[in-house]
Amino acid sequence: MAHYGAKVVVPIDLKKKPWEQKHPLHNRWHPDIPVVAEVKDGEVFRVEMVDFSGGGITSDYSAEDVKHADQSIVHYLSGPIRVVDKETPAMPGDLLAVEICNLGPLPGDEWGYTATFDRENGGGFLTDHFPCATKAIWYFEGIYAYSPHIPGVRFPGLTHPGIIGTAPSMELLNIWNEREREVEENGHNSLKLCEVLHSRPLANLPSTKGCHLGKIKKGTAEWEKIAKEAARTIPGRENGGNCDIKNLSRGSKIYLPVFVEGANLSTGDMHFSQGDGEVSFCGAIEMSGFLELKCEIIRGGMKEYLTPMGPTPLHVNPIFEIGPVEPRFSEWLVFEGISVDESGRQHFLDASVAYKRAVLNAIDYLSKFGYSKEQVYLLLSCCPCEGRISGIVDAPNAVATLAIPTAIFDQDIRPKAGKVPIGPRLVRKPDVLRCSYDGNLPTTKNPAASM
Amino acid sequence: MAHYGAKVVVPIDLKKKPWEQKHPLHNRWHPDIPVVAEVKDGEVFRVEMVDFSGGGITSDYSAEDVKHADQSIVHYLSGPIRVVDKETPAMPGDLLAVEICNLGPLPGDEWGYTATFDRENGGGFLTDHFPCATKAIWYFEGIYAYSPHIPGVRFPGLTHPGIIGTAPSMELLNIWNEREREVEENGHNSLKLCEVLHSRPLANLPSTKGCHLGKIKKGTAEWEKIAKEAARTIPGRENGGNCDIKNLSRGSKIYLPVFVEGANLSTGDMHFSQGDGEVSFCGAIEMSGFLELKCEIIRGGMKEYLTPMGPTPLHVNPIFEIGPVEPRFSEWLVFEGISVDESGRQHFLDASVAYKRAVLNAIDYLSKFGYSKEQVYLLLSCCPCEGRISGIVDAPNAVATLAIPTAIFDQDIRPKAGKVPIGPRLVRKPDVLRCSYDGNLPTTKNPAASM
Amino acid sequence: MAHYGAKVVVPIDLKKKPWEQKHPLHNRWHPDIPVVAEVKDGEVFRVEMVDFSGGGITSDYSAEDVKHADQSIVHYLSGPIRVVDKETPAMPGDLLAVEICNLGPLPGDEWGYTATFDRENGGGFLTDHFPCATKAIWYFEGIYAYSPHIPGVRFPGLTHPGIIGTAPSMELLNIWNEREREVEENGHNSLKLCEVLHSRPLANLPSTKGCHLGKIKKGTAEWEKIAKEAARTIPGRENGGNCDIKNLSRGSKIYLPVFVEGANLSTGDMHFSQGDGEVSFCGAIEMSGFLELKCEIIRGGMKEYLTPMGPTPLHVNPIFEIGPVEPRFSEWLVFEGISVDESGRQHFLDASVAYKRAVLNAIDYLSKFGYSKEQVYLLLSCCPCEGRISGIVDAPNAVATLAIPTAIFDQDIRPKAGKVPIGPRLVRKPDVLRCSYDGNLPTTKNPAASM
Amino acid sequence: MAHYGAKVVVPIDLKKKPWEQKHPLHNRWHPDIPVVAEVKDGEVFRVEMVDFSGGGITSDYSAEDVKHADQSIVHYLSGPIRVVDKETPAMPGDLLAVEICNLGPLPGDEWGYTATFDRENGGGFLTDHFPCATKAIWYFEGIYAYSPHIPGVRFPGLTHPGIIGTAPSMELLNIWNEREREVEENGHNSLKLCEVLHSRPLANLPSTKGCHLGKIKKGTAEWEKIAKEAARTIPGRENGGNCDIKNLSRGSKIYLPVFVEGANLSTGDMHFSQGDGEVSFCGAIEMSGFLELKCEIIRGGMKEYLTPMGPTPLHVNPIFEIGPVEPRFSEWLVFEGISVDESGRQHFLDASVAYKRAVLNAIDYLSKFGYSKEQVYLLLSCCPCEGRISGIVDAPNAVATLAIPTAIFDQDIRPKAGKVPIGPRLVRKPDVLRCSYDGNLPTTKNPAASM
Repeated sequence: MAHYGAKVVVPIDLKKKPWEQKHPLHNRWHPDIPVVAEVKDGEVFRVEMVDFSGGGITSDYSAEDVKHADQSIVHYLSGPIRVVDKETPAMPGDLLAVEICNLGPLPGDEWGYTATFDRENGGGFLTDHFPCATKAIWYFEGIYAYSPHIPGVRFPGLTHPGIIGTAPSMELLNIWNEREREVEENGHNSLKLCEVLHSRPLANLPSTKGCHLGKIKKGTAEWEKIAKEAARTIPGRENGGNCDIKNLSRGSKIYLPVFVEGANLSTGDMHFSQGDGEVSFCGAIEMSGFLELKCEIIRGGMKEYLTPMGPTPLHVNPIFEIGPVEPRFSEWLVFEGISVDESGRQHFLDASVAYKRAVLNAIDYLSKFGYSKEQVYLLLSCCPCEGRISGIVDAPNAVATLAIPTAIFDQDIRPKAGKVPIGPRLVRKPDVLRCSYDGNLPTTKNPAASM
Repeated sequence: MAHYGAKVVVPIDLKKKPWEQKHPLHNRWHPDIPVVAEVKDGEVFRVEMVDFSGGGITSDYSAEDVKHADQSIVHYLSGPIRVVDKETPAMPGDLLAVEICNLGPLPGDEWGYTATFDRENGGGFLTDHFPCATKAIWYFEGIYAYSPHIPGVRFPGLTHPGIIGTAPSMELLNIWNEREREVEENGHNSLKLCEVLHSRPLANLPSTKGCHLGKIKKGTAEWEKIAKEAARTIPGRENGGNCDIKNLSRGSKIYLPVFVEGANLSTGDMHFSQGDGEVSFCGAIEMSGFLELKCEIIRGGMKEYLTPMGPTPLHVNPIFEIGPVEPRFSEWLVFEGISVDESGRQHFLDASVAYKRAVLNAIDYLSKFGYSKEQVYLLLSCCPCEGRISGIVDAPNAVATLAIPTAIFDQDIRPKAGKVPIGPRLVRKPDVLRCSYDGNLPTTKNPAASM
Repeated sequence: MAHYGAKVVVPIDLKKKPWEQKHPLHNRWHPDIPVVAEVKDGEVFRVEMVDFSGGGITSDYSAEDVKHADQSIVHYLSGPIRVVDKETPAMPGDLLAVEICNLGPLPGDEWGYTATFDRENGGGFLTDHFPCATKAIWYFEGIYAYSPHIPGVRFPGLTHPGIIGTAPSMELLNIWNEREREVEENGHNSLKLCEVLHSRPLANLPSTKGCHLGKIKKGTAEWEKIAKEAARTIPGRENGGNCDIKNLSRGSKIYLPVFVEGANLSTGDMHFSQGDGEVSFCGAIEMSGFLELKCEIIRGGMKEYLTPMGPTPLHVNPIFEIGPVEPRFSEWLVFEGISVDESGRQHFLDASVAYKRAVLNAIDYLSKFGYSKEQVYLLLSCCPCEGRISGIVDAPNAVATLAIPTAIFDQDIRPKAGKVPIGPRLVRKPDVLRCSYDGNLPTTKNPAASM
Repeated sequence: MAHYGAKVVVPIDLKKKPWEQKHPLHNRWHPDIPVVAEVKDGEVFRVEMVDFSGGGITSDYSAEDVKHADQSIVHYLSGPIRVVDKETPAMPGDLLAVEICNLGPLPGDEWGYTATFDRENGGGFLTDHFPCATKAIWYFEGIYAYSPHIPGVRFPGLTHPGIIGTAPSMELLNIWNEREREVEENGHNSLKLCEVLHSRPLANLPSTKGCHLGKIKKGTAEWEKIAKEAARTIPGRENGGNCDIKNLSRGSKIYLPVFVEGANLSTGDMHFSQGDGEVSFCGAIEMSGFLELKCEIIRGGMKEYLTPMGPTPLHVNPIFEIGPVEPRFSEWLVFEGISVDESGRQHFLDASVAYKRAVLNAIDYLSKFGYSKEQVYLLLSCCPCEGRISGIVDAPNAVATLAIPTAIFDQDIRPKAGKVPIGPRLVRKPDVLRCSYDGNLPTTKNPAASM
C-alpha cells in the first residue's frame, strides 16, 4: 500500500528529553546551529515539536513547576531545516514562503497549560497586579479546549506555532545583541516611570545557561562560542521568531527573509489557542504538536518585496497571509482602554498602557460573573480574543480595545437591564492552581490598582 | 398615510453653518451645554450630523483647506440629547445602552475625504515621515467608496460614528483637565526620545478659541466660563467620546456610563470607513451623516458592570458590542512591526512603536505596486484594515500587526515567485492632492527613516 | 452646494396609486412596454418602487386584505429603463451587469408584511396544511425587523429585490406562453399525485384583468394587444424576473441576458428579508423601497458566457455574484427532510417533497417553543434561513435541509437534556392575524398531515 | 507518560479487507447487527473507517475500477456502537446528541477520489448527459485538496461523514422496505417522463449479494435472515444515515432518534469535501478517515423534540447543528436553474429539475475556462459549492441556485467586459480518467441536451 501524506523530517518522542531526540532540539538563534534535515521547494513535510518548556511544565495539578520554571531554557525549537529548490539552496536575499498546510497536537498528548510566572521569575503583562505563579490545565476534545480550572468556558482552538523563523546571519545577530544590550544597560534612563515599576527583565541577552544547540555537544569549544553569541528566542525579530500571531493557523502563509544559505528554518512553541497579546506571558494554551509545511523559494524576494526600515538592509520584517479556516464568531463584547494608567496618570499616545487598561477592564468585568481575577487573566491570555489599536492619533489618549467572543461562555455575559446582582450567585469553582508570592509588590499611589 | 420610521431629533441643513443649525452644534464636552432634544428609552430616533470640520474641508481638489485647517473647532457634535425612561431621566450611576440601528451618509452628500495635516498643524502618526498636508476625495456608490486620488482601490464601508459619548460631570471634567495639563507641562521629562522628536501637541487643553457650545451665545459670561473649562473632543475618555472604534457599525451597542442627569448624549465625526488606528489623524473617510439610535437605561449599571480603574469611581471605560452586519473579507495580507524604531534603536515592549513599524512596512510594500507612499498612508488610514497587538510580553519586543484585506485592490498584491519587477509597470496616476511643507524636519541618524 | 449621490430615475410618491406615478408602473413582461428612463453604463442611479401589491395590502391589523387580494395585479414593477453605453444601447446578445450599490425601504415607510394567501386564492407551499389567509406586520428599526405578531424574534434584514429582469423579445415571450400553456392544459396527466392534490394554479397565463402596462393607456387597442400577450411576472424565467434569490443584497451583481435593444430593465417586489424558498408565497417581508444601481454592458456577453440549455439560443439563465455585506450568523439549527410525504409515501429523488418535509419538521419543532404553527410558517418564510439540496442522488430519497440562525430568537431553541417540558411554559402571544377558510381541504389517508 | 486523547473504539488496518478488521464492518441497516463497542455519555472516542468502497476503488490512474464497481457492497460502515449513560443504555424514544469533536483522513492515506458511475451501473444526477465512468484522484496537502486530473483548482476541505445513523427497529425497517418496494414496483406509473428516461434504479431494496453484517458469519442462517431484511445504506432515512449534509464538519452536533436499546450508532463514507447535492453520485472526495465523537443521551428527547410527520411515531427526521469551524469564502458566483428541462418543457415547481438546470448551466459556463465538461461535473460534485432552493412557490417555476466560491480557481472566473474570447487560450490538461460507455443513450427531441 502506498503512503500518501507528509514526510516526517523532525520526529518527536515524548518519552525523551529535548536533547535526546533523534534530531536534538535547540533553543537559541545562531547561523551555526547545524541543519537536521533538508526539504525541497513544493514538498509537504511534517515537523513535530515539544511544548516550549520541553516537558518542564507538566499536567500535574500544581503550580510549583511554573513557579520554579527555568527561564534559561525557553523555547525548544525543532530544526533547523534547510530548504532547496531542485539542487540550489535558498540564498540570502531570497524570500521563503512557508505554507502551514496543517497542524495540531501530537496524538495521545492532547492537553495543554496556561500559566503566569512569578513576578521575580519572568512575570507577565500584569505582573504588578498578579505577582504569583498560577497554572490552568486544558484538555482537548477535538477542536475544543476546556479547563477544570476555569469552569464554564469551552472554545475551538485557533492553533498556531508561536515561533517560526529563519536563522540570522552573524551580521544580523550582532545587530540584535547590540541593540538589546543597549536597552538592558541604559533602559532606565529612557524608559517611562510605569515601565520600570515592574521588575521584569528589560531584555534577554545571550547566556550559556540552559543553552541547547541541537547536534553541537554541550561543553565543547564550539558550543561555548556559539552559546555566548546566540540570541534568545523570547522576542520576535527580523527573522520572524516568536511573533505569537494568533491567526497563523491552517492555510496561512509566512514570507520569511532568508539570511543564510538554506534558510535554516526552525519552529516551536505550539499554541492550541492564544489571545492577542498573550498577556499572561506563559499565556497561550502551550502544548506539543506537529506542523505540516510546504515551502516555496521566492528568488530575490527580499529586495523585491521587503524594504529595510532601519540603518541596514537587514532591518526587515516578515509578511503573513491568514488562512481560510478559522473558528467563526458572530458576537463580541469589546472592552476599551485609554492611555491613562491605574494611578490616574496620563500617558501620551501609549498603546501599551491603553491595552493594559482594556485588559484590566475586561478582567474586572468578567470577574463579576463568578470568576476569580486570576481565572480571567489566564482566560484572556489564551482564548481567541482580539486586541486592537483603535485610535493612535488623538492626543493624548491612545485607544486600545479587547474583543471577546461571547460564545465561549456557558452564560450570557452581556450587560442587562433589570438583572439581579450578578456576583453572589455565580461563584465558579474550582479556581486556577496557584503558588504564594514571596516578593514585595511596588507601592503605588492608587490602592485600586493593586486590585 | 402613516409615517413609519425614526423620529428626527437633530436635523442638519447642509447649506447652513454648524452654529446656524436648528439645534446649534457644540465642539466641547461640558455638563452645562444645554440639551437640544429628549428621547425615550426604547424609541428609535434619528440624529444628523455635519462632518467633523463642519464643512471647513471641502470637496475641492486642493489640499489648501487641509493645510490651514483650524484645529480649534474640531469636532462639531450633534446633541446633547436627554434620555428618559417614562418620566425619569437617566441618572449618574446608570449605564446607557445605545444601539446603532442604522447609519449612513446624508442623502445627496455622498462623498468624503481623508487627509493628513501639516506637521506644524496637527500632524499625524507618521508626521516625521509625511510632514505635508495631503487630501484625497472619496465618492460613494452605495456601500462602496472610491477615490480618483487613489486609483485601483474600492471597498465597502464599515461606517461608524467616530464620536459618541455622554456629558462628563464637573468632577470628571476636572480630572481630565488636571491630568492632561500635567502631561502638557511635564511631558518632556517623562517622554521617550522618539516621542518628543515630533512637534505634535502633547495634549489639547481647553481653549475659548473656536469653541462652540450649542445654544449658549458666544461671548456671554456663561459662554466664557464654560469655554474655559470645557474639554476638547480630540481624545477618547471615560465618557466614550472620540474612540474611533471602526467596528461600531450597524447593530452595534455601546454601554456608556452616565455622569449627569439625562445622560446628555452627543455624537459626531461620522466615518464612512476607517482603519484601526486612523493613522493619518484626519484619517477616516470623513463625512456628514445620520444615525438611527435606540437607547435603554440600565439602572445602577455603572456600579453593576463597570469597575473604576483609577483613584475615583469615575475612572471607568465604556463597553461595546459589535453588530452582525459587516463587510466580509476572506483574505488578508499581514504586516508586522516590532518595537525597534527606524534608527535601529530598541524600545521596551512599546506597542506604539511596533504599530508604527507595521504601518511603515505596509506603506513601503504597497508602494511597490504603483502607489506613492502618501497614497498608501491615506489608504491605510481609511480602509478597513485591522491593527492588532499580537505580542506584548516577549521582552524587549512588542509585536504589532496590520492586516489588509486584499480584495480592496484591483490587482493581486501578494508576493509571487518569478514575477517581473513590479514597480516600473504600475505607476498609478493621479496622486493625492498635496501642499508643500515649509517647516524643518528633525534630523535623524537614519537616512532611510526619512523615506 | 453640489449634489453627490445617485440620480433618481424612477421616483415613487406613496400617496399615489401605481398607475398614477410620474412613471406609471407595469406588471407584465413584454418588449413593447415603453421605456420610462435612460441610464448610462457606469452611472449610479436610483429606482424607487412600491410593494408588490401596490398598496393593496396595508399595515392594518387585519388579514381581510390578504384574503381578498387581487392576484391579477402582481407584481408592480418600476421601469423599463433603457441602458446605453455612450450613445449605443445595449443590444440583443449582450450581457447586462447590474450592480446593486445600495437598497432599502423608502424613508418614512419603514414597515412590511408577510402573509399566506387563502387556499382558493393563490395558496402557498404548504397550503394543504395552512389553508387560511394570515398576515404579520413587521416594523423596522434600522437593520432590524420585529413583528408584534411573532413575538420574541428580531433579525437583521438581508434586503433584496425579489424581481429584477430585462424585457423579453417576442420570440422568447412566445416560448414562455407556449410552454406554460402546455403545463396548464396537460398538467394533470404528467403530474404526480401529490402535486394535483392542491388546487393552486399550475401556471399563470397572460390575462388582461389587472394588467398595467406603464404609459400605455388602458383600453386602447395597443393595450389590448399587449395585455393579451404579456407574460405574468410570477415565475422567474430566462430574463431573470421573480428569482427571489435572498442573497442579492448590497454589492451583488446580476448578469442579465439582453433580448431587446436597450435591455429594458425593470425591477420591483422589494423584500426586507426572505428565507430560501419564500415558502408562504406572499412570503418575504414585503415592502416598498429603493435600489441604487450601476449597469455595465458586456458586449456579446450572452454568447461568450451563457450557453443555451434548450432548443433555442434564448434558453439561458442569468448569473449572479453575491455581495460582501451580509448579516453574519455563527450558529444554525438544521432540519432535514427526505422525499417521503406526510402519508408515508415514497417519492423518487424529489427535492420539492424533501424540502416540504424539512419545512414541516422545522414548523413542528419551533411550535414547541411557544409559537403557533402559523407563526412559524410565516417566520420561516421571511427570516434569513437557508434551504439546501443536500443529497440528490441517493435513490430513492432526495435530502433537503433548512438551516435557521439561532440568534434570531430571544430564547435558546436547541435541544437540551434534562429540560422540563417546553410547551406549556412558553405560550407566545399574540398570534398572526388570520381569516377563516371557507373551502374544503383534501382528504388524506394520514391524519397527522392535516396538523 | 499519561495518554490524553480519544479512546479508539473502532480501529482500521488499511492493509486488511473490511471484513477482516478487528471489528468487521457492515454495509446494511438492521437492529440485529451485533454491537462492536460500547461508549459512555460524555466520553470522547475515536472511530476509524474505510472509504465507502472498502478499497474497491483505488488510487490507480484508471477508471476501470469505477466502471465495474460493485454497487451491492456500498457503504462499509464502522459500528454499531452502543451508548450508555452510566449503566443505562440509550433507549427507544431518547434522542442521541452526537458531537463531532474532530475528524480527518487516516494518517498516511491522505488521498481521495471523485467519480461518476457508468450509466448502466448506478449513473448519477446527470447520467443522461454523462453516461460513462470517470474518475479523478485528489491528494491532500493538510487542509487542501488538489487533483492532477482537474488542474488549476485547490480548496480547503469541509470534511464530514457522509453517513451517520442509529439502527432502525424492526418496525421502522419494515416501513422502509414496504415504501421503497412500492416505488420500485409501481414507480413508472407515478413518475414523470423525465425521471424514467434514465435507467437508474428507482430504489435499492434488500439483497444478500454483497451483504456484510459485521461479526455475523456469512452463509449462516442468521446471516441469511438478516441479509434478506436489512436495508441498503444508499438513501438517508429517519435514522439519519446517508444524509450527505456537507456542513457536518468539526464541532457539529447531530440529534439522532433512538429506535433500539443502546442506539447502535454506525458511521462511514467519509468525505474530504462535497458540494451540496453530491451530484455525480460517487461524488464527494471519497476517502478513509477517522471521527472523534462525544455522545449525550437526551432522555425522552424524541417525543420532546421531534414530531412524527407520517402515519407512525417513527416518521421523524434528525436535527443538526453546524459547527463553528468552516472554510471562509467571501465571493461566490451563482448559477440559476428554473424548472424547464433541456427539451424546453415546463415542469411544475420541481426543485429537482431546477437544480439540474442550475448544475448544467454551471458546467457549461466553467467549461469555457479551459475545462472539459466532465472535469466540471466532478468538480461541482465535490467542491464546497452550495445548492439552494431559492423560490418554490412561483408557479410554474421552481428556482434553484448553485453558488461556487470563486477562490478555489487559480483564474478569475467572473464575466468581464472587453475580454478576448476565453475558450481557446485556456485548455486545461490533463483531463479526468474515463472509460467508454457501451450502452445506448435515450433519444431526446433536444439535441442541445446531449451536450
